Amino acid sequence: MMLEKTTRMNYLYDFYQELLTSKQRDYMSFYYLDDFSLGEIAEQFSVSRQAVYDNIKRTEAILEQYEKKLHLYEKFLKRRQLLKDLTELLEGKMTEEDRKRSLQIVKELNELD
Amino acid sequence: MMLEKTTRMNYLYDFYQELLTSKQRDYMSFYYLDDFSLGEIAEQFSVSRQAVYDNIKRTEAILEQYEKKLHLYEKFLKRRQLLKDLTELLEGKMTEEDRKRSLQIVKELNELD
Repeated sequence: MMLEKTTRMNYLYDFYQELLTSKQRDYMSFYYLDDFSLGEIAEQFSVSRQAVYDNIKRTEAILEQYEKKLHLYEKFLKRRQLLKDLTELLEGKMTEEDRKRSLQIVKELNELD
Repeated sequence: MMLEKTTRMNYLYDFYQELLTSKQRDYMSFYYLDDFSLGEIAEQFSVSRQAVYDNIKRTEAILEQYEKKLHLYEKFLKRRQLLKDLTELLEGKMTEEDRKRSLQIVKELNELD
């Protein structure tokens, strides 16, 4: 499985899992969080490998739809970068220029909501 | 209508409107954003006042369910307060103590996600 996709799905799952059914959550958490194979999950739930695969593909699409509507992961990434920049400024010399940049970052954080 | 509830519904609508149907969005925006009465909305859409009322009550419940699951409004309020505190610190003398408090706030902002 591609690492980039796994990371993205882990985050999307983290943000939107409450909007999924318990079955969707089960398969997704076994597959993405616990790194079980499709075959192992199929065995665990006594269903076909294809059924698990279809369910996971559908759930991935649902998660992407939620992200398209609510942008929680996208905002999280922007916020994390801004907070990282802000931390670096606050840990530095904090010149007048740094203060201005910090206030600008706070403004951008406010606008993200 | 109670102001406090109106404010809350405006925010919940703002955060979760993309998850509503277009009809739910129509009624809610007329009622909460544009301050139309139930009667005016009923006339506009050629339906009964009761139908509009029922739809809005149902939509309010749906918005509250989303909030219960995703907590976007709750996190927004906490974030807004933290950013306000941070702005005040950055606009002040920025002593060593202020810097520490600022870094603590950034930590709390990170943990909110």
